[in-house]
Amino acid sequence: MEEQITYINVRSLLSFCCVLEDFHDPALNINSYFEKPNGHPESLCWSAVWTARADMAAVAKAMSKFRLAVVQLHVTSVKADNLSRARGLVKEAAGRGSQLVLLPECFNSPYGTGFFSQYAERIPGESTQLLSETAKENQVYLVGGSIPEEDGGKLYNSCTVFGPDGELILKHRKIHLFDIDVPGKIRFQESETLTPGDRLSTFQTRCQLLVYPGAFNMTTGPAHWELLQRARALDNQLYVATASPARDEASSYVAWGHSSVVNPWGEVISKAGPEEAVIYADVDLQYLADIRQQIPVTAQRRDDLYAVTSLPGAAS
Amino acid sequence: MEEQITYINVRSLLSFCCVLEDFHDPALNINSYFEKPNGHPESLCWSAVWTARADMAAVAKAMSKFRLAVVQLHVTSVKADNLSRARGLVKEAAGRGSQLVLLPECFNSPYGTGFFSQYAERIPGESTQLLSETAKENQVYLVGGSIPEEDGGKLYNSCTVFGPDGELILKHRKIHLFDIDVPGKIRFQESETLTPGDRLSTFQTRCQLLVYPGAFNMTTGPAHWELLQRARALDNQLYVATASPARDEASSYVAWGHSSVVNPWGEVISKAGPEEAVIYADVDLQYLADIRQQIPVTAQRRDDLYAVTSLPGAAS
Repeated sequence: MEEQITYINVRSLLSFCCVLEDFHDPALNINSYFEKPNGHPESLCWSAVWTARADMAAVAKAMSKFRLAVVQLHVTSVKADNLSRARGLVKEAAGRGSQLVLLPECFNSPYGTGFFSQYAERIPGESTQLLSETAKENQVYLVGGSIPEEDGGKLYNSCTVFGPDGELILKHRKIHLFDIDVPGKIRFQESETLTPGDRLSTFQTRCQLLVYPGAFNMTTGPAHWELLQRARALDNQLYVATASPARDEASSYVAWGHSSVVNPWGEVISKAGPEEAVIYADVDLQYLADIRQQIPVTAQRRDDLYAVTSLPGAAS
Repeated sequence: MEEQITYINVRSLLSFCCVLEDFHDPALNINSYFEKPNGHPESLCWSAVWTARADMAAVAKAMSKFRLAVVQLHVTSVKADNLSRARGLVKEAAGRGSQLVLLPECFNSPYGTGFFSQYAERIPGESTQLLSETAKENQVYLVGGSIPEEDGGKLYNSCTVFGPDGELILKHRKIHLFDIDVPGKIRFQESETLTPGDRLSTFQTRCQLLVYPGAFNMTTGPAHWELLQRARALDNQLYVATASPARDEASSYVAWGHSSVVNPWGEVISKAGPEEAVIYADVDLQYLADIRQQIPVTAQRRDDLYAVTSLPGAAS
């Protein structure tokens, strides 16, 4: 079933895995997401990683490092402002040497079921056109957080990724919608207005990084935000970067903020406060390779006892 | 392939899942371990959980709580002392109302590749006979941590579980051996002397609990011990209990200690220091059911897109 996976080749030393999901679900770790659908439990991402490691040996050691930036955007109700400020902050990040820049979930619209319809666009459309131009003019990989997407009368929570040439690399529609109901604290049901995506999204990568644009809240934020990203980093021995909107106490859904980058040992190496900010982290692929050699988790997997597979039709 | 799973019925309201593994491996969460092998991604454990919830509705609310104890034993080089002290501390725990008691990994022997052969026993043998008697005389479920097991000239790291009637419920041989090599800090290779088990171990349960007897060290302990157990609790929305040997600075392998119990929200609700101790936690299955209703992670799983399966022959 190998042919069901579309490899999107990224012609650069710098490439990455992108996952747009609430990473609350245990199914959401990389083993589920980037799995070869041929029954072999080594994931697509891991395959790419092995390739990466081989490639890396051939390049100068300095090339094993690169800088990423996370833009914790203050999202307002004025879409044009959101877009222009995003563009400005990506430029600022690129000016400081970032080769990969992340934007938050729902970066062009307030986050809320009452807003999705009003702010939704087709893809391509105004917001993704701006992302494409911004990636190209700054020569960066740009993970465009997400936007409410309209297609065929349905709404999706969709992430687009652009390369330094402004080309669309990936579009992923969130497949696990966020529904929560903690009495007296928070109730929010994305599924009331959004339709979930129907496929996993992967592309070939040389870089061991998981990216989660996400908008946790004042209940799940303090309890789970850092825990989950540290867990995913350690479980998979790779870098994890999260991009949240900045906190806005006046909005109907108050985002937790605290966008972060975690290293493969599970340590937070960069972290924003609640306010709008750009945070930076230097990703070190040699350090990552060392960690995997020190605790060889993937080599210890019991492929004879269990398997994680994507199902027919799941991969794009 | 349903018949490849052996359901071991536990005739009590109180039963549990037991996993003896380093939970470093992302494959080690409950989705991998307790998976129905018929291709349906709902795990054995989750199945049991649904049963449990239905059952629970029929019993008094007070019955949805029970007390567990973790014995963080100070393991010495004198096996008879280890056994007698374990027996005494289980009795102490039972005297304080515990219905389920856990012992640490390698509780009858110093932890180290140089010791396993010397301390190994057949099962049944001296140590497991004592566990059986101890469970029966205190009317508790007893997760006997692990002991070095000898069978057919090979050594295993094996966990046994006994019911309140003294009957052996489960024997599990560790399938992911612990190999680590962090230069300048720690090198330890279980695989130099131990043979891994060749099957997953499950039994039917009404209680949402994962148990990890484990001996982390002074390198991985501060970095990963609490993180991993909180992550597994939150990922699977259940209670996690860990049992470590007490720290002994004079031993060749210095265990981290800090045995803990974590609730389904990812909070540590009970935690030992480094020294020998018995810690207690009141497990609340109604609270667990509430968490699962508030954030319905399992209902949101995309069974159409991915599956986790155990392979033929893996389940016992």
